[in-house]
Amino acid sequence: MKVVVTIMLRPGVLDPQGQAVQRALASLGFEEVREVRQGKVIELDLALADREEAELRVREMCERLLANTVIESYRIDLP
Amino acid sequence: MKVVVTIMLRPGVLDPQGQAVQRALASLGFEEVREVRQGKVIELDLALADREEAELRVREMCERLLANTVIESYRIDLP
Repeated sequence: MKVVVTIMLRPGVLDPQGQAVQRALASLGFEEVREVRQGKVIELDLALADREEAELRVREMCERLLANTVIESYRIDLP
Repeated sequence: MKVVVTIMLRPGVLDPQGQAVQRALASLGFEEVREVRQGKVIELDLALADREEAELRVREMCERLLANTVIESYRIDLP
């Protein structure tokens, strides 16, 4: 089963990587870009068939390893 | 207008970062994880109101800066 986790910095947390991308875009003429936030997407292929179990396990993975929940929030999608 | 770009390594391109995450998960007991692929998500806030124009501009940003289209593919979502 495929599960997609999207991890973003929480609103209010400074995103220097996003700011660098925004400046680079502006220098290329993309002046219409007001703000850029950059995050991670992690695609997992699990040897599980049950959707509920998969979501529970992935939530545990996020809390224990994938996300730093002090500064990051995550979203779990089971397509 | 908000636009979300998701950038992943193309299938077949080695993903050492994803492999490292997979090993770390396995060492924590998440043995059900068969494969991990890690990519980037870039949220853009644009000073544009027209959806078609926004998508065209973001496609140009991807081709010129955001994605390395030799090894990466990208998806543009306008929520």
